[in-house]
Amino acid sequence: MAKITPRSQDFSQWYLDVIREADMADYAPVRGCIVVKPYGWALYENMRDLLDKRFKETGHVNAAFPMFIPMSFLQKEAKHVEGFSPELAVVTVGGGEILEEPLVVRPTSETIIGYMYAQWIKSYRDLPVLINLWNSVVRWEKRTKPFLRTMEFYWQEGHTAHATHEDAWAEVMRMLDVYHKHGVEDCAMPSIKGRKSINERFAGAVNTTSIEAMMGDKRALQAATSHDLGQNFAKAFEIKYLDRDNTEKYCWTTSWGLSWRFLGALIMVHGDDQGLRLPPKVAPIQAVIVPIFKNDAEKSAVMAVCERLFQTLKAAGIRVKLDEREETPGFKFNDWEMRGVPVRIEVGPKDVANHSVALARRDMPGKAGKSFVPQDGLVERLRALFDDIHASLYKQAEDFQRANIREVNTYEELKEATQDGWALAPLADDPAVDTRLKEELQVTNRNFPFDQPEGDWKCVVTGRPVRERALVAKAY
Amino acid sequence: MAKITPRSQDFSQWYLDVIREADMADYAPVRGCIVVKPYGWALYENMRDLLDKRFKETGHVNAAFPMFIPMSFLQKEAKHVEGFSPELAVVTVGGGEILEEPLVVRPTSETIIGYMYAQWIKSYRDLPVLINLWNSVVRWEKRTKPFLRTMEFYWQEGHTAHATHEDAWAEVMRMLDVYHKHGVEDCAMPSIKGRKSINERFAGAVNTTSIEAMMGDKRALQAATSHDLGQNFAKAFEIKYLDRDNTEKYCWTTSWGLSWRFLGALIMVHGDDQGLRLPPKVAPIQAVIVPIFKNDAEKSAVMAVCERLFQTLKAAGIRVKLDEREETPGFKFNDWEMRGVPVRIEVGPKDVANHSVALARRDMPGKAGKSFVPQDGLVERLRALFDDIHASLYKQAEDFQRANIREVNTYEELKEATQDGWALAPLADDPAVDTRLKEELQVTNRNFPFDQPEGDWKCVVTGRPVRERALVAKAY
Repeated sequence: MAKITPRSQDFSQWYLDVIREADMADYAPVRGCIVVKPYGWALYENMRDLLDKRFKETGHVNAAFPMFIPMSFLQKEAKHVEGFSPELAVVTVGGGEILEEPLVVRPTSETIIGYMYAQWIKSYRDLPVLINLWNSVVRWEKRTKPFLRTMEFYWQEGHTAHATHEDAWAEVMRMLDVYHKHGVEDCAMPSIKGRKSINERFAGAVNTTSIEAMMGDKRALQAATSHDLGQNFAKAFEIKYLDRDNTEKYCWTTSWGLSWRFLGALIMVHGDDQGLRLPPKVAPIQAVIVPIFKNDAEKSAVMAVCERLFQTLKAAGIRVKLDEREETPGFKFNDWEMRGVPVRIEVGPKDVANHSVALARRDMPGKAGKSFVPQDGLVERLRALFDDIHASLYKQAEDFQRANIREVNTYEELKEATQDGWALAPLADDPAVDTRLKEELQVTNRNFPFDQPEGDWKCVVTGRPVRERALVAKAY
Repeated sequence: MAKITPRSQDFSQWYLDVIREADMADYAPVRGCIVVKPYGWALYENMRDLLDKRFKETGHVNAAFPMFIPMSFLQKEAKHVEGFSPELAVVTVGGGEILEEPLVVRPTSETIIGYMYAQWIKSYRDLPVLINLWNSVVRWEKRTKPFLRTMEFYWQEGHTAHATHEDAWAEVMRMLDVYHKHGVEDCAMPSIKGRKSINERFAGAVNTTSIEAMMGDKRALQAATSHDLGQNFAKAFEIKYLDRDNTEKYCWTTSWGLSWRFLGALIMVHGDDQGLRLPPKVAPIQAVIVPIFKNDAEKSAVMAVCERLFQTLKAAGIRVKLDEREETPGFKFNDWEMRGVPVRIEVGPKDVANHSVALARRDMPGKAGKSFVPQDGLVERLRALFDDIHASLYKQAEDFQRANIREVNTYEELKEATQDGWALAPLADDPAVDTRLKEELQVTNRNFPFDQPEGDWKCVVTGRPVRERALVAKAY
C-alpha cells in the first residue's frame, strides 16, 4: 500500500506524491502551469474564505482589476520594471492584429492600481482606500512544483493608500498580523514575523515584511509579504490628495499578498508518511463516516445509522462525507488518511447495538487517536475534537519549529546550524552579506524578526556591530 | 440633483450614468477592459455565492484551470477554432523569449478541459464528472460597455462528462433551470428558457439552450447558455471510458456559462430614473440607517438609537450600513436610492421619543413605500419586507415582460411588434432566416421557448410549415 515516498527518504518526492495521491492537483499542458483538482480547490476556497473574512473585519473591500496592463505602465517605476521585466508574459496579438502597444499579463497590480487610484483619490476625505483583489497573476517560470513554483498562481493582492506614512506603516503591520493569525488560528501553522533585508525587498518597496514558516524538512518558506511602498508608486502615478490644509500631497501606499504557496506550506508543515493532515477549519471534509459490515443484514442496519448520523452532522454545519463506495474499510481508511480528513467515524454492527461509534483522529496515529463514544451528542463531541486536533497540530508544528532554530554567534556556528535547521544570527542588512551567504552556504536571510531583544551583536559575516539578529535558513 | 439621464430619454446613456453614479465600475486604461469597483464587486460576489450554492446543491464541484491554452488545442475542434479565432489574445513572448508555440489567453476552456478529462476519465465509475470554474476569460473586443461588452469578463464555466447522451442532455437542462431559478429566486429577474437556433449555437455544440431576459428598454439579453456538446470535444480530445460491457466509448460532454452580463441585466431590468433598484438577496447593503437631527442634543439621542439598531440588525445577519457622514439627510437619501439599497431606515428625534422608525422602500416611490413602525421587532419586519420587495420587483419585471411580447403570424406583424417589444413568431430554424431578420429588421431569433404548445404554423419569413414559434427581438 506504500503509494508515497517516506518523508525522511526524499521530502520533495514525498510532497509530489501526496499532491498526486490526495488528488489535489495535476500538471497542465502548458509548462509551469497546474490544474487544481476539486479536492485541492475546495481546500483553497476554505482558506480563501477565512482570510477574506479577516480582510473584511479589518475594513477592507474587494474589487476586480483587469489582467492586462500596458507595457508602458511597468516602466513608470524604475525598480519595479527592473524586478519584473524578466518574468513577463506579453500579449502582442489581439483580435488577429499586432498590437501597437503590447499588453503584459499582470505579474502584480501596483501599476494599474496606481493609475486608477490617481483618478479616484481627490481629497483627504477619500482616504484611506483599502482594496483587496482575489485573482491570478503570471510570472514566467519553466520549472513547476505544484503550489510552490508555478507560472500562473492564484493569490490575493491588497492595495491601500493613506494620508500619512504612519498610517501606511500601521496598515503594513496590521496585514502582516492578519496573515500570521490566519496561519495560527485557521491553518494551525506557526510563523515568524519580521522585516526583509534590503536585498529581498519587493521591487519598488521601501520596506518589505514577511512571515516565515518552517516546513517539515526544516527549510523556510516565505508564507506572505506586506510592503511599505512609501511614495514610490504615488509619485510614479501621481496619486495625490488635497489635504485639510488645502495643499496637494502625495499618498503613501502599501501592498500585501498571500498566494496558494500557503496551501503548499500547509501540506509540508502538517503532512506525514500516510499523506495529508488537514486542520479542521480548512479541511474540505472534516469528518468521514465509514460503514463496516460483513453481510446484507449487517449492511442495512449499519447504513441506516450512518445515514442518520450523516444528516445530523450535515444539518449542524459539519463538512461530513458518507463513504458508500464498494471498497473495503481498509482501503477507505487509507484513502481518507491520504486526504488528511481530521476525523474518521467508523460504524459497525456492534456500534449499532451499542448506540456508539468509533472515532479515529488523523493527527494521532493508531490506538492513541481512537475512542469509542455514544452516538448521542456526536455533534458537540466532534466540535470539541476539532478544536483539540487544531491545537495538537499547531503544537507539533510549533515544537518542531522551536527545536530547530539555533542562536548562533559565529559564521561557523551559522554554517553548522543551517545544515539542518534555522539559525538566528547577528547579521548586517547588506546585500553583499546576503550574496555571500547564498553563494557559500546556499542559505538566505529570511527576515529580521520583530519580536526579539535588541543587543550589541557582531555580524557573523562582516564582524560589524549590529543591533538585530536575522533568521537564516535554506528556503523554498 | 439630476445626475443621470432619464431612462425614457436615452436608455443606453442612463445605463452608463447609473454605473458611474452608483460607483459600480470604471473604464480601465486598456481598451475593452473595466475595473469593477468595490460596490459593484460586492454585488457580483453576492450573485456568485448564491449561484455557487445552487451548483453545489446539484452535485457540482469547483476547480481551477490555467488561463493559458496552447494555440494547437483550439485547432482540434474545427468549428470551435473557426468561431473563436478572430477574438483571441495571444501571448507570443514569455520570460523575454519568443515562444515556440504561442499561448492563447482562454476565451473559454472546453479544449484544455478536454485534454485533462481524457487523462482523468478511465472507467464508467469515473462518470459523471461535474466540474465548474469561476474565472475570467478574454475575447477581443474594442468597444466597451461595462458588464455587457468587455474584452475580459468574469464568469463561471461548467464542464461535465457523461456516459450517455441522455445523461448529458439532462445536465444541459438541469443547469439551464439552475440559471433560470437564480434569476427568479435570487435576482427577481424573469427569463424564458429555450433552444437557440442552429445559427446561434456555441462553436462546437450540437445544441445550445439559453435563458432570455427582457431589459427595461424591451431589448432582449441572453442571460446564460447551456450547451450540449455531443461527442464533438470527446472525439477531438479522446475523452473515452471503459463501459460495464468492457468496450471503450466516447463520453458525452456539456458546458454552461453565466457571466457578469447577468449583473448588467439586473441593472437594466430593475433600475429607474433614481438609479439602481437591487433585490434584497443580492444587495451589498440591504438596509441603510440615516440619522436625522438638527442640533447636538438631538444628535446624541438619535445616534444612540441608530447605533443600537445597527448592532441588532448586524447581529441578525442583515447587511446593514449606518450612514454617519456629515451630509444632509436629503443628500444621503438620493445617494442610497442611486445605489439601489432596498430599505432606508430613518431615525429622527420623534422616533427616539416614540420608539419608532420610518421605513422607506426603494421599490415603491414616495408615500406609498413609506411606513412608521416600532423599533421592537425590526429584524423580523425587515425580513418580511425584503421578501415583499423581492416579490414586487419580480412582479413588475414579469408584468412588463408579458405586456411586451406579442404573438404574431405574419412578417408585417413581426416587423411591427419588434419595433417596440418582442414577437413570438412561427419561424424556420434556418440560418438564412436568421440572416434575413438581422439584415432587414435588425432583430434576432432569441430562442425557441421550451414552454409552448406545438402547432401547425407557417414560418413568417419563408412560409414553410413549422412546429414551433421563436422569440424574436432586438438584442444586446
